[in-house]
Amino acid sequence: MIGRLNHVGIATPSIDDAVRVYADLYGATVSRAKFALPEQGVWVAFIDLANSQIELIEPYGDASPVWGFLKKFPNGGQHHICFEVPDIIAARDALRAKGATVLGTGEPRMGAHGVPVIFVHPKDTGGVLVELMTEPSGH
Amino acid sequence: MIGRLNHVGIATPSIDDAVRVYADLYGATVSRAKFALPEQGVWVAFIDLANSQIELIEPYGDASPVWGFLKKFPNGGQHHICFEVPDIIAARDALRAKGATVLGTGEPRMGAHGVPVIFVHPKDTGGVLVELMTEPSGH
Repeated sequence: MIGRLNHVGIATPSIDDAVRVYADLYGATVSRAKFALPEQGVWVAFIDLANSQIELIEPYGDASPVWGFLKKFPNGGQHHICFEVPDIIAARDALRAKGATVLGTGEPRMGAHGVPVIFVHPKDTGGVLVELMTEPSGH
Repeated sequence: MIGRLNHVGIATPSIDDAVRVYADLYGATVSRAKFALPEQGVWVAFIDLANSQIELIEPYGDASPVWGFLKKFPNGGQHHICFEVPDIIAARDALRAKGATVLGTGEPRMGAHGVPVIFVHPKDTGGVLVELMTEPSGH
């Protein structure tokens, strides 16, 4: 069912600081500069890797779901992994049929890549928060 | 400096159970079955993705560094991310020159892919444990 590892999601109290770290220590560069994704409650920036991406996320607004994560891990840390799927609705329905918990209403929301995404509860995948996103066109 | 995202390292109390989850829920298959890496104190298995891998790690032996992680996260979770570098010694020296902390003695050790690896302290990379590994030949 799953295709590419689209990105590793990393929460940070400051995207600006994190971008500097990845540039200075690892020579990695931003492929998409910081932008707001209010419907997900996050600021987002992408760092390019040869075969995948790092998605840096920072809380946007008081209701951001990332605040809870940063309360536990004030310096940030690995937040989720994101796999591409060909059909997000089919993926959601298959997961539910197998007893997995899709977060929120289960209706796909627009993600940072402009395609629909869902999140699967960490309890279903050994403590790992999994994002599934529709394969971007052009792959 | 860094090249491909070689893998996302995920700690689990049971590789066997985790493999079943990734197969059943996500249709992902093992590319390398569970094997011991005593020098790192881990059992390891790799799950194939189209462009990268998931490395499942389970404690091997009483002194495994993964026990501490599982004490905090009994169901497992995201443990590290691993980037490929062309020259592990040059990478280590450059990181140290920038003030980063390379774990252990800093001498590269043999990793799960049979190439030398080092680990960079999470405090240097926003709470993320970073593994650097020599690019496998044949890339």
